[in-house]
Amino acid sequence: MSEPRQLLETFPNQFPHRDYKIEIRQPEFTSLCPKTGQPDFATITISYTPDKVCVELKSLKFYLQSYRERGIFYEHVTNTILDDLVMTCQPRWMKVEASFNARGGITEIVTAVHSANY
Amino acid sequence: MSEPRQLLETFPNQFPHRDYKIEIRQPEFTSLCPKTGQPDFATITISYTPDKVCVELKSLKFYLQSYRERGIFYEHVTNTILDDLVMTCQPRWMKVEASFNARGGITEIVTAVHSANY
Amino acid sequence: MSEPRQLLETFPNQFPHRDYKIEIRQPEFTSLCPKTGQPDFATITISYTPDKVCVELKSLKFYLQSYRERGIFYEHVTNTILDDLVMTCQPRWMKVEASFNARGGITEIVTAVHSANY
Amino acid sequence: MSEPRQLLETFPNQFPHRDYKIEIRQPEFTSLCPKTGQPDFATITISYTPDKVCVELKSLKFYLQSYRERGIFYEHVTNTILDDLVMTCQPRWMKVEASFNARGGITEIVTAVHSANY
Amino acid sequence: MSEPRQLLETFPNQFPHRDYKIEIRQPEFTSLCPKTGQPDFATITISYTPDKVCVELKSLKFYLQSYRERGIFYEHVTNTILDDLVMTCQPRWMKVEASFNARGGITEIVTAVHSANY
Amino acid sequence: MSEPRQLLETFPNQFPHRDYKIEIRQPEFTSLCPKTGQPDFATITISYTPDKVCVELKSLKFYLQSYRERGIFYEHVTNTILDDLVMTCQPRWMKVEASFNARGGITEIVTAVHSANY
Amino acid sequence: MSEPRQLLETFPNQFPHRDYKIEIRQPEFTSLCPKTGQPDFATITISYTPDKVCVELKSLKFYLQSYRERGIFYEHVTNTILDDLVMTCQPRWMKVEASFNARGGITEIVTAVHSANY
Amino acid sequence: MSEPRQLLETFPNQFPHRDYKIEIRQPEFTSLCPKTGQPDFATITISYTPDKVCVELKSLKFYLQSYRERGIFYEHVTNTILDDLVMTCQPRWMKVEASFNARGGITEIVTAVHSANY
Amino acid sequence: MSEPRQLLETFPNQFPHRDYKIEIRQPEFTSLCPKTGQPDFATITISYTPDKVCVELKSLKFYLQSYRERGIFYEHVTNTILDDLVMTCQPRWMKVEASFNARGGITEIVTAVHSANY
Amino acid sequence: MSEPRQLLETFPNQFPHRDYKIEIRQPEFTSLCPKTGQPDFATITISYTPDKVCVELKSLKFYLQSYRERGIFYEHVTNTILDDLVMTCQPRWMKVEASFNARGGITEIVTAVHSANY
Repeated sequence: MSEPRQLLETFPNQFPHRDYKIEIRQPEFTSLCPKTGQPDFATITISYTPDKVCVELKSLKFYLQSYRERGIFYEHVTNTILDDLVMTCQPRWMKVEASFNARGGITEIVTAVHSANY
Repeated sequence: MSEPRQLLETFPNQFPHRDYKIEIRQPEFTSLCPKTGQPDFATITISYTPDKVCVELKSLKFYLQSYRERGIFYEHVTNTILDDLVMTCQPRWMKVEASFNARGGITEIVTAVHSANY
Repeated sequence: MSEPRQLLETFPNQFPHRDYKIEIRQPEFTSLCPKTGQPDFATITISYTPDKVCVELKSLKFYLQSYRERGIFYEHVTNTILDDLVMTCQPRWMKVEASFNARGGITEIVTAVHSANY
Repeated sequence: MSEPRQLLETFPNQFPHRDYKIEIRQPEFTSLCPKTGQPDFATITISYTPDKVCVELKSLKFYLQSYRERGIFYEHVTNTILDDLVMTCQPRWMKVEASFNARGGITEIVTAVHSANY
Repeated sequence: MSEPRQLLETFPNQFPHRDYKIEIRQPEFTSLCPKTGQPDFATITISYTPDKVCVELKSLKFYLQSYRERGIFYEHVTNTILDDLVMTCQPRWMKVEASFNARGGITEIVTAVHSANY
Repeated sequence: MSEPRQLLETFPNQFPHRDYKIEIRQPEFTSLCPKTGQPDFATITISYTPDKVCVELKSLKFYLQSYRERGIFYEHVTNTILDDLVMTCQPRWMKVEASFNARGGITEIVTAVHSANY
Repeated sequence: MSEPRQLLETFPNQFPHRDYKIEIRQPEFTSLCPKTGQPDFATITISYTPDKVCVELKSLKFYLQSYRERGIFYEHVTNTILDDLVMTCQPRWMKVEASFNARGGITEIVTAVHSANY
Repeated sequence: MSEPRQLLETFPNQFPHRDYKIEIRQPEFTSLCPKTGQPDFATITISYTPDKVCVELKSLKFYLQSYRERGIFYEHVTNTILDDLVMTCQPRWMKVEASFNARGGITEIVTAVHSANY
Repeated sequence: MSEPRQLLETFPNQFPHRDYKIEIRQPEFTSLCPKTGQPDFATITISYTPDKVCVELKSLKFYLQSYRERGIFYEHVTNTILDDLVMTCQPRWMKVEASFNARGGITEIVTAVHSANY
Repeated sequence: MSEPRQLLETFPNQFPHRDYKIEIRQPEFTSLCPKTGQPDFATITISYTPDKVCVELKSLKFYLQSYRERGIFYEHVTNTILDDLVMTCQPRWMKVEASFNARGGITEIVTAVHSANY
C-alpha cells in the first residue's frame, strides 16, 4: 500500500477518562491547483478530542507534506484530511479547517467537522 | 439572457453526506453610488454549506466584478448577491456580509442570511 | 418643529421578507460635557434589523452632528439616539453602543437595546 | 465614617424602564502587595446594568485611587470593589474584572459577578 | 516525599459565597522533549473557580519551573498540571491550556477541563 | 482638451515662505490590467512640498477616479500620476507611491520622486 | 484682544542648559470645513525643544479647542498652530503635524517645521 | 538551455530618465533543505531601480516557483536570485531579501545588494 | 542623607573595552501632579552606554518607585532621572524618555540626552 | 576541551565577493539569574556580514541551548555570545541583541557590535 494515509501514526491516549482538546496548526501547507498546476498555500488547523489514540505530530507533518505535489481542490483537501485522520485515530470529535491564501484576490476557508456531539 | 447571475457557475459537491462550511472573502468589491455616481468599495464575505453543488470561484470573481459599473445601494448589493447565489447553488445555508468603506466618516456593514436552520 | 430627530430621514426597505442586519459605525461623534462644557468624543455603533423603512445615511450623519454643541451625559446620548431612531424607523430590533474616549484616565461604553427578540 | 466606599457617589438613572449596560475601564489602577509592599498595577473593568442609580464617574476615580497606598491581595481587590459598588448603587447586574500586570512572569485576572440573571 | 506537586501551596478563599474566576497566565513555561531532549516552550493558562482555597502564585511559579528539566509530552504536561492543581486546591471548576511554540512548523495547543458544571 | 490631467485644480499656497510637507493617501485606487482587462487595486500615497500652489483634494479625487476604466501597467500609473501632478502644481519636491494588491500571490510597490533636493 | 493665540500660556523652562525634546499628541482636534461647514477631525502632534519657556498643557488644550467652530483648511490649521506656538514660546526648534481623518476616502497629513537646526 | 534563469522575461522601461524604485514581495516562496529534504518557506522581497528593462511579473512568478523542488541553502537562495535578476535586467541598483520561516525555533533573514551606489 | 538618588547602586562594567548599549524599560512609573495631587502614569525608557559601572536593576526599581508619592512635573521627572543616573554611573552616553498617559485627552513624551557624542 | 564555544560550527561562505547580511533570531533563549537561580528568558538576534565562513544554524541552536543551566547576567550573555561568534567565524561585521523578558516589571535589551565599519 502507498496511500498518504499510511504515513499517519498514532500513540496511546494516556488520559482517556477525560474529554480534552488538542489543536494543531500547520501554516505551511502547500498543494497544487488541479486545473492550472499552480501552487496553492494554506494554513491547516486540526482540533480533536482523542479517544484511544492521539495522532503523532511528526507523522502528521510528513502526511501533510505528501500533498506538496498533488493536484487537489480546496474542498477535497479539507474533507480528505478529515477522513484520513478520523479513520486513523477514531477521535470522539474532530474539526479540520483549511484557510487558503488569496487567488485572484479571493480567499477561501473550508471547515468540516466529524461527529455531532460537539 | 444577459443578467449577471448567469455568470455564476457551479460544480458538483463531492461530500454531500457531510455538512461542511465554505467561507469566501473578496476584499476588492466595487460598485457605484446610484445617487452620486461615485465609486463605493466593500469587502464581501460569503459563507455557506453546500448541498448538491458548490459555486465555482473564478465565475464568482467575474460575477462580483459585474457590479463595477452598476449604481446600487448597500442593502441591494447584499440581498442581491444572496438571492443570486441561493438561486444558483441552492445551499443548505448561506450568509452574505458586505462591509463598505467609510463615506462621510460613516461605515456600514449589511448582513443577510438564507434559511433558518443556522 | 426643530428637534434633532426631525433631521432623520428614511427610505423604504426593499427586502422586508427577510430579517437582515445593518450595522453603522460613526467614529467621529462629539458632544459637550454638561458640567464642564468640555468636548466629549465617542464612536457610535448602530445595529438594526429594518422593518418597513431603513434610516438614510446622510440624514443620520446630520442628526449625529446635531450633538456637537449639546451638553449631554454619556447615558443620555446612548438612550436618546436609540429612542429617536426607534421612533423614526420602527425597526424589528436595534442596538446603540456609544464608546467614549478616556476622561481622567477612565473610558465608558454605554449599550442599549430595543426589543427583546434578539 | 472614613471608609473608601463613602467616596462613591451616584446619580439617578433616567432610563430605568430599559435594561442597558454601562462598561467602565480604568487602566491606571495601582495598589500595594501586602507581603512585600511592592506596587501592583491593574486594569479594572466594571460592567453593570443600573437600576435606580448610576455610579458617578469622578467619585469612582477617587474611590479607585484610594487603593494606591493599601496593601491588598488580587482576589480582595476584585471582590471588595464589587461589594462596595453593589452596596452603593444596587445594580440589576454587575461584573468586576481586575487584570494585574505580570509579577515573576505570571499574569492574573480575577473576575467576579453579582446576581444570577446574567 | 519529593514530587513537584508538593511545591504547590494554597491560602484560604475569603469569598467562598461567590463563584468567581481566577485566570493565571505564565508565558515562560519550558520542558524537554522526551524523545530528543530538545527544549519545548509553552504558554500555560490556568482558569478556575476556587472553593475553599486558592493556589498561591509564588508556589505555582516554582511548581511550573520544576518542569524545566523533565522530559514530558505536550498532552502529559497539560493533564498533569490539571491533575496536580485539582488535587491540591479542589476547585469548583478548572481549565488548563498549554500552547506550545512551533516545532517543525507545527503548533499544538492542549486544553483540559475539570468538572462538568461550566 | 479631454486628458485626465485637466481634471486637476489648484489653489494658492498661503505659506510659500516655509518648506512644509503635505501627504495625501488614497487607499481606493483602481485601474485595469492592460493585458487581461482584470481590475487592479492600489493605495496611492502622494507627498510634496508646495511652491506657489497646492493641489485641490476634490479635483485630485476625480483625477484618480479617471483611471477606473483605463488599462495601464503599475509603473505607468506611478510615473504618470507624478508627471501630471508635477506639471499641474510645480512642487518644490514630490513623491508618488503606488502599492498594488497581490496578483498571483505577488505584491508590487512602485515609488517615484521628482527633484533631487530631497 | 481676543485671538485664540492669547489662550496660550507658558512656564519657565527649568533645564535651559540642555537641548531636550517635548512631544505632545492631541488626537481629539476638530474644526470645520470652510467650504461645506462639515466637521473635520485630526490628530495634532507638536514636538519642540524649549528655550526659555515651555507651553502650558491646559492652556494648549483650550487653544486647540478654540478651532472647534472655526472654518479653516488643513494647511492653515498646521501652519497657524505652528506660528502661534512659535510666537508664544520661541522654541529652539518646533514641528507641528496634523493628520486629518479621511474625507471622500482621502487622508491628508500636513507637517511644518520651524528653524533649520534640526 | 534549461536553467531557471531562462524563465525570466523583461519589458522596456518607459521611464529611464527617472530613478524610481520597484519593490516586489512574494510571501509564498518554498524550496527544499539540501540536508534533510524537508521543505523551507520564505518571503522574498526584491527592490530595484530599473535601467533599460523591468522584470516581467508573471515570468518572475514562474522563476521563483522553479525553486519548489530544489535543495538549496538560505544563503544560496538569496544570492542566486540576486545574480539571476541582475544578469537578466541589469538594474541600476537591486536588493534581495529572503526571510525564512522558523526551523528549530530559529528564523533567518538573508539580504544581499547589487551595486555600491546605495 | 536621604535623597532618592542614594537608592541607586552600580556594579562594575566587565566589558569596558567595547561601546555597547543597554536599554531599560519600566512601564509602571507613577508620580503625582504637583498642582492637583492626582496620579500621573508613564513608561520610562533609559538607554545608555556604560563606562566604568552599570546601574543595578533592582536598585533602579526602588529609585523609580520613590517617585510614587512625589508631586513633580513631566519635564522635571525626565531631567531629574537623567541627572541622577548620570551622576551615579557616569555613562559614555545616556538617554531618558518618559511617555506619560493622556490627561485631558493629551499625551506628552519628554526625551533628554546626556553627552554630545551620540 | 568543553567550553560551549566549541559547539559552534561553520561552513564556507560561497559568496565572499559580496557584502551581504545574515540576521538570525532565536526567541527561545533561557538562562539562569546568578543571584537568585531563577530562569531568565530572552530573544537573541544576531546579524552579521560573513567573511570566509558562515555560522552553521544547528550548531548555533545547541550553543544557545548551552546557556539553559548557566547562571549569567544580561550584559555577560550579550557580550559573551558576541565574543564566541566573532572568534569562531571572524565576520566582517556582527551585532548581537538580547531582549530579556520583564523582571520586577522592568525589561532590558543589551546590544553589542563588533567592528567599527558599521
